[in-house]
Amino acid sequence: MFSEEHKKMGITFPQGFQAAGVKAGIKKSGNLDLALIYTEKEAAVAGTFTKNQVAAAPVYVSKEVVKGGKAHAICANAGCANACTGEQGLADARAMAKEAADAVGCAANEVIVASTGVIGVQLPMDKVKKGVKAAAAELSENGSVNAGNAIITTDTYSKACATEVEIGGKKVRFGAIAKGSGMIQPDMATMLCFITTDAAIDQPLLQAALSEVVEVTFNMISIDGDMSTNDMAIVLANGAAGNATITKKDKDYEIFRDTLKELCTGLSQRIAADGEGATKFLTIHVTGAKTFESAKQVGMSVAKSPLVKTAFFGEDPNWGRVICAVGYSGVPMEPEKTVVKFGGIAVYDKGVGAKFDETALRKVMAEHDVVIDVELGLGNAEATVWSCDFSYEYVKINGEYHT
Amino acid sequence: MFSEEHKKMGITFPQGFQAAGVKAGIKKSGNLDLALIYTEKEAAVAGTFTKNQVAAAPVYVSKEVVKGGKAHAICANAGCANACTGEQGLADARAMAKEAADAVGCAANEVIVASTGVIGVQLPMDKVKKGVKAAAAELSENGSVNAGNAIITTDTYSKACATEVEIGGKKVRFGAIAKGSGMIQPDMATMLCFITTDAAIDQPLLQAALSEVVEVTFNMISIDGDMSTNDMAIVLANGAAGNATITKKDKDYEIFRDTLKELCTGLSQRIAADGEGATKFLTIHVTGAKTFESAKQVGMSVAKSPLVKTAFFGEDPNWGRVICAVGYSGVPMEPEKTVVKFGGIAVYDKGVGAKFDETALRKVMAEHDVVIDVELGLGNAEATVWSCDFSYEYVKINGEYHT
Repeated sequence: MFSEEHKKMGITFPQGFQAAGVKAGIKKSGNLDLALIYTEKEAAVAGTFTKNQVAAAPVYVSKEVVKGGKAHAICANAGCANACTGEQGLADARAMAKEAADAVGCAANEVIVASTGVIGVQLPMDKVKKGVKAAAAELSENGSVNAGNAIITTDTYSKACATEVEIGGKKVRFGAIAKGSGMIQPDMATMLCFITTDAAIDQPLLQAALSEVVEVTFNMISIDGDMSTNDMAIVLANGAAGNATITKKDKDYEIFRDTLKELCTGLSQRIAADGEGATKFLTIHVTGAKTFESAKQVGMSVAKSPLVKTAFFGEDPNWGRVICAVGYSGVPMEPEKTVVKFGGIAVYDKGVGAKFDETALRKVMAEHDVVIDVELGLGNAEATVWSCDFSYEYVKINGEYHT
Repeated sequence: MFSEEHKKMGITFPQGFQAAGVKAGIKKSGNLDLALIYTEKEAAVAGTFTKNQVAAAPVYVSKEVVKGGKAHAICANAGCANACTGEQGLADARAMAKEAADAVGCAANEVIVASTGVIGVQLPMDKVKKGVKAAAAELSENGSVNAGNAIITTDTYSKACATEVEIGGKKVRFGAIAKGSGMIQPDMATMLCFITTDAAIDQPLLQAALSEVVEVTFNMISIDGDMSTNDMAIVLANGAAGNATITKKDKDYEIFRDTLKELCTGLSQRIAADGEGATKFLTIHVTGAKTFESAKQVGMSVAKSPLVKTAFFGEDPNWGRVICAVGYSGVPMEPEKTVVKFGGIAVYDKGVGAKFDETALRKVMAEHDVVIDVELGLGNAEATVWSCDFSYEYVKINGEYHT
């Protein structure tokens, strides 16, 4: 997606955006843990949030900001989720927004706040406040890499993207940083993702585009089936590109939405591939379903099966576990119409195991990227789900991740 | 549950039942792999079966037998699931029933057949036939242990139970053997379980009692959320105890059902505790729900969370993962009314982390058996789910289990 250089620029690739990431001392490791993203020009803001009923304090605060429709900044920390922290947690999330607002010079209700890390621990506000000040002082057009690194937890690397398209005769840029490795399950944003664009677009259309895109990108990932308390995807559009403001679902809107989708698809795939302890990136492509929803349900059933995930870790072409997960997904299916393929090689063919070239299949299983096709033969709808395997490392990371 | 001696007698504890387990050569290990259970006196038969749409051939055949309402024998093998085996698989399951019927002297439609093991491989019928003959020759009142061992796969031991109660002034006996360690998930029998009783009971009532009991016992287990293609729970009641036949839902029926429930509860707990690679036995007790179904759904959400399971493996009191799983279960809940306890110690108290004695909690986490209480504060319904942790060993077993 564009050049490596632009990817590195991430969220500061679009005009008018600055970012910073600093060490506030919230993470025990002492790594970067507080990110600030800023646009002097007011941005339209849209967001999607966790549907977990136990939502973190910053989720409540940021939902209000999105309701207001405009923002100047995003302030996010890693190392502490500020979830299950009661009234104090809510006050702290608001104080974090206020601190960032004061530091960059905007209103507190124009600052998105986000947190990720351990649940049930209060934010160390002294550290947060110092961190916010330090980040504000470091804001620059080269700050995306640090900001990206400041929001990761068990991720092995920070996910960033950037791209440029033409909308209404103007070059419009998009950038994004995302994190997410464990506690990843569909049904909303399922991680932290901050997207910037210098496109001019009305806020309701920005929200419409984001909501539509999230459904087929971030909501199609499953790493462990655990839906986080803190997920959010936020997009800021500051209009600095000078395109005629997108005000209806026309051609320009479509370009905007498709670019957003391309960006989010890339990030989703990278989040799945970087799942905790993952050694394989699995793409589960379900076709021949009656509806998108049922195709997704079948794909998720396969993606979430611990038996499927451990089989791929073991590079064992155990298709029985895949068809088993298809059979219990809750979606009506007919074994006699169903075909399952690994890397394009049919392994299950309408009720029985297929005859396949074992050497070729072994080669498919040894690859890092494996595509699992499930052809239901019932209709024309399809869905693609991204997942990863289950390794010893997953157990290690999560058996030892300290509370 | 009764003495060790009676437990050892398992399915042959009730009068008139014989059993055998032999090495038919189906398992690669060369261990016992074919079981036969026989009652000369005709038995009423009831069963519950997998709801997986990809059901194994023996499931189809045994459903027909249960429909007929009477049986003389159960013939089961381990090492090959006879699932996804098409027409050949169905013919083989029928041939297996016929072989057993001929060997013991009854009709083929009076023989329950069951298989467990690898999916997608045809039954080695030569071995099955020889095994059935050998088992028939070995049928005895001391055959329960061998029969139990012949149906296990990755289980570390065979689960058996036996008990005696008085019904209508007569001593009535119950016995059972069960297997199940991986691919265990609720929504039906979720393993193989064969129960014998010498009680006299009408078949429709036998089925009613089994169906009712399975809902709150075997269907409350989750090891890995994977619903098998081969599950079944079968009960044979041959009436040898001489009690007045139970023909309605009276006091006798209640004693019968309660005894069956006690038996199945014990087996369910042992199946969960012997989950693949398990180092912990987790009891998730959800109270204050509006309905049993919603309480179960919350309990299952916690039981199936890989993050919860790995935390318990790591003996880490990471209650945030438990409340997170409660929040995404799909059941409406209110964080401010919810309390979570580990081993009776409150860890999450109405919206925030509870203050607890860390030493006492560490002691709870170090135990093999841990009770997780989730109090929703919304109603009076409750449910108990049994589960286990996720260990390196689970990944090892399932990464290396050969197809």
